[in-house]
Amino acid sequence: MTSDELVIGVDVGGTKVSIAAMRGGRLGEPLLRPTDRSSTAALIAQLVASVTEVAGGEPLAAVGVGLPSVVEFETGLVRSSTNIPLADVPLRTVLAQRLGVPTFVDNDATVAALAEAHEGAQLATRCLVMITVGTGIGGGIVIDGRSYRGATGAAGEVGHMLVAIDESIPAPSRFPQPGSLESLAAGHVLDALAREAALAHPDSALGRVLVLRGAVGGPDAVQAAMDGDEVAAAAVATLGRRLGVGVANMINIFDPQVVAIGGGVSSAGELLVGPARDVAREYVLPGVGTATEIRVARSGPQAGVRGAALLARSELKRQNGEAR
Amino acid sequence: MTSDELVIGVDVGGTKVSIAAMRGGRLGEPLLRPTDRSSTAALIAQLVASVTEVAGGEPLAAVGVGLPSVVEFETGLVRSSTNIPLADVPLRTVLAQRLGVPTFVDNDATVAALAEAHEGAQLATRCLVMITVGTGIGGGIVIDGRSYRGATGAAGEVGHMLVAIDESIPAPSRFPQPGSLESLAAGHVLDALAREAALAHPDSALGRVLVLRGAVGGPDAVQAAMDGDEVAAAAVATLGRRLGVGVANMINIFDPQVVAIGGGVSSAGELLVGPARDVAREYVLPGVGTATEIRVARSGPQAGVRGAALLARSELKRQNGEAR
Repeated sequence: MTSDELVIGVDVGGTKVSIAAMRGGRLGEPLLRPTDRSSTAALIAQLVASVTEVAGGEPLAAVGVGLPSVVEFETGLVRSSTNIPLADVPLRTVLAQRLGVPTFVDNDATVAALAEAHEGAQLATRCLVMITVGTGIGGGIVIDGRSYRGATGAAGEVGHMLVAIDESIPAPSRFPQPGSLESLAAGHVLDALAREAALAHPDSALGRVLVLRGAVGGPDAVQAAMDGDEVAAAAVATLGRRLGVGVANMINIFDPQVVAIGGGVSSAGELLVGPARDVAREYVLPGVGTATEIRVARSGPQAGVRGAALLARSELKRQNGEAR
Repeated sequence: MTSDELVIGVDVGGTKVSIAAMRGGRLGEPLLRPTDRSSTAALIAQLVASVTEVAGGEPLAAVGVGLPSVVEFETGLVRSSTNIPLADVPLRTVLAQRLGVPTFVDNDATVAALAEAHEGAQLATRCLVMITVGTGIGGGIVIDGRSYRGATGAAGEVGHMLVAIDESIPAPSRFPQPGSLESLAAGHVLDALAREAALAHPDSALGRVLVLRGAVGGPDAVQAAMDGDEVAAAAVATLGRRLGVGVANMINIFDPQVVAIGGGVSSAGELLVGPARDVAREYVLPGVGTATEIRVARSGPQAGVRGAALLARSELKRQNGEAR
């Protein structure tokens, strides 16, 4: 491809679909649509219509799609999904046929990690682990400047890493498993921590949200913490410390250049990542991770759609045999 | 290099040094020497003398060395070591000067994983995780057919992965950390499990070892288990189940083709790996690891020295710009 050919990135979330054009490494303003979760056919029709709308009749070189799913990258088969109606769907083939252009589909955390490893369209970090903390916890891995997907494309399930099992091995099979990082440090846990803190401290800013609204959740804790409420900050810090155990594990295993923490909860910034960093430093074996930066993801809410577009771009290049 | 040039592999352990010649991908019978741990200088002198002895005056193309150490691969600096007197030693430079040939030094589990990914001198597995269970627990990672070392060469510290932390985050900084895989499933833990089992079952084969010898350890448990003692087999299986949690984590993260379990304790074979496999299957997210084989390492006690020789071979090839 030439660098100014048009590619489109699509980030499919449980709530909204984000679609944006990329040309010459520059991402356009994303089009946002509420995710049509009524059926598999309806969701696919929505993706085709949105891509067509964003392309606006211009020649399109490729499409990249990020999904909250277990994806076989090579074949583009979506095996299973969280919160969207895609299971055992050969999405890559279906979209390529309907759109008439090369299409690549991948896990959303994997493409977000690809975005995080780039500055604009330039690769900036060759070895990076991204942990996305949203409702659940996902992970993306970049090794030697490329997405690492494992033998079948299902790698990077960092949230399902066990960090606090008890003696009942094996526990009953259910996911997220008790003791997994996701069960301890995901957004739904912050919801519970926020409620607890608000009940215990009714005079705090967070407590007043509960009194006024009758409910309080993780996003309230993040907002109140950023506004200076110490009770809310303590709840966010608790989540951050637990997350730090997962960060330590990833450093002991990968010794990466960067561990980036993204996802919705990461809008708390250093209030979350600071405590995670402190704990990680305690648990990393001396001599390991000496060059690792632990940081808030820079790519922000557009990480998914940007990463999907970069995926389309890099795969086209690879197919054309250009240097990566 | 031509394929029949002579390379020498050196595996430095806390107890013995193993040195062997490799020519045309075939490894010769290793020379074994008790490790000279009296000083850094003495150990280096021993390595130089042993390599010279094995070379027997023939032209030598390269030397590969595996060490129980945190190693900066690119520079060949040995940062810190377990059980041998090497800390902050530029071993690669020192050996290359003393021997007059290109020398490569790496972590012992990393080179063992390289051996495990090969059949003879042919790459057989592109994506493999090796967990070595000896006195401690080490790890080696092969991605895309090459050793994965991370940003500074210190990757693969699988034993220090936390799998069972309690609420006291962070715990006091000491290694192995309580709750780490090494603290739960290493050889020293099998020593304790064996003692416990022998005391509780004095009439078992393992119990009789304790009565007769006044002491019993992990190797006795492995031997008795292989001879059919159910008490000993239960102790080995307990270790295997704990190990299975670590295996599950590595599969959720890497989705590899192979997880190989090596190290001294792996001589228990399926008595150890069977329970690990059962537990891992419970804890791996459905859809992940569908192609992963969990097996006893095939490379046996010569994994280290074979991997060190393969390292020398592959690095020479890489330096000469040959296809890897």
